[in-house]
Formats: sequence, structure tokens, C-alpha cells
Amino acid sequence: MLDDELLSTHLQELRRGTVVLACLLILRRPNYGYALLDLLDRRGFAVDANTLYPLLRRLEKQGLLTSDWNTGEARPRKFYRTSGRGVALADTLSRDWDELDTALRTLKGES
Amino acid sequence: MLDDELLSTHLQELRRGTVVLACLLILRRPNYGYALLDLLDRRGFAVDANTLYPLLRRLEKQGLLTSDWNTGEARPRKFYRTSGRGVALADTLSRDWDELDTALRTLKGES
Repeated sequence: MLDDELLSTHLQELRRGTVVLACLLILRRPNYGYALLDLLDRRGFAVDANTLYPLLRRLEKQGLLTSDWNTGEARPRKFYRTSGRGVALADTLSRDWDELDTALRTLKGES
Repeated sequence: MLDDELLSTHLQELRRGTVVLACLLILRRPNYGYALLDLLDRRGFAVDANTLYPLLRRLEKQGLLTSDWNTGEARPRKFYRTSGRGVALADTLSRDWDELDTALRTLKGES
């Protein structure tokens, strides 16, 4: 009944904002891009590298993530970590999500 | 700690996809644009008219809403109603939302 493209556009729109929140929550423990990509995928927030890497740089620019190069291994990796400001945003977004969730549940119950 | 603009950008991104779902759920009972605008606002899905009206036309074009002119009153009004296809999309988006909700709750619990 629904064609794939239409469905995927709307699903993508629904999911878009959650990737930022998921990143801020996961990166309370420092991690590097590729590992984060894998974690997001396993947790149900599939996103591709071409979307994630610019997003991480943008969040760092906004002061929501900090980064450090880990040069202890053969291949230096940039580790990202959620900043205090990022934790504050994650808290606010979580509360907003909960409100939307309650509002949607109310609407669904009114069929 | 967070400036208003940054916060509002991220909140908006989180909310964007939910407006489509909220419209599809509310319009299972036919209604016209202005009344819908008011309902969305009261239910916590604030959106402005300049965003909602083009969205309604887009959803109609996608076959997710149907419309009829109600000419019984002094001022003719276009009533929108969620189509069968729209109901199917709302079901799918609702399931996807629930999955995202579960995934976010899991992440939050891992602090």
C-alpha cells in the first residue's frame, strides 16, 4: 500500500533528530567515529558515515562534544566525548522526547 | 548553559517528524486547517500556519490525506481526512517511534 520511497522519507524525518540525542548519550563515554557508527547501528539508529562524521564535527563546533586524539595506538584516532553543555542538551531533548511520546500516545488512544 | 538558538534548532529537528504523524492521527476525523493548527498546538505539536498548510497539501499529493470542500457554511472550508494509505503510514511510523523510544530509554539507562 505504501511505496518504499514515501515511507523511507517519512521514517527518516522521524528519526533524524534522534541521532543527535543518541550520539550525546552514547558519547558520555569517549569513543571514536567508526565505533560510534557501529554502536548506533546496533542500537537502532542506523546512519551512514557521510552523515555521521559531519554531524560529529558540527556538534563539536557547537560545544556539545569535545575531542582528543588518541595516539597511543598504531593508528591515531579522534575520540569524541559529550561536554557538560552536551549533557545539558541531552537532558532537555530527553524531556522533550518524553512529552512528544506522551502526546502521541494520547492521540493514538483517540481513534 | 545552552543558548536559545542552539537549543531550538535541535528541539525542532527532534519534533519535525512528529508533526506528520500527529496530523495523520488527528485527521482520522476530518477537520480543516485552522482547527487542526489549534489542535496541534494544544496537544504539544506547535507548528505555524506557514509550515502546516504546505505540509497538508504535500500529504494530500502523496495520497496520505484526502480533502473535500464543506460549502454548507457561510465560509467554505477545505476538510482534510487521513486516507487508508495515510492510516497505514501512521501505523508504520508509530511502530518506528516505539522502537526509537525503547532504544533511547536503553541508552539513557546506560549512563
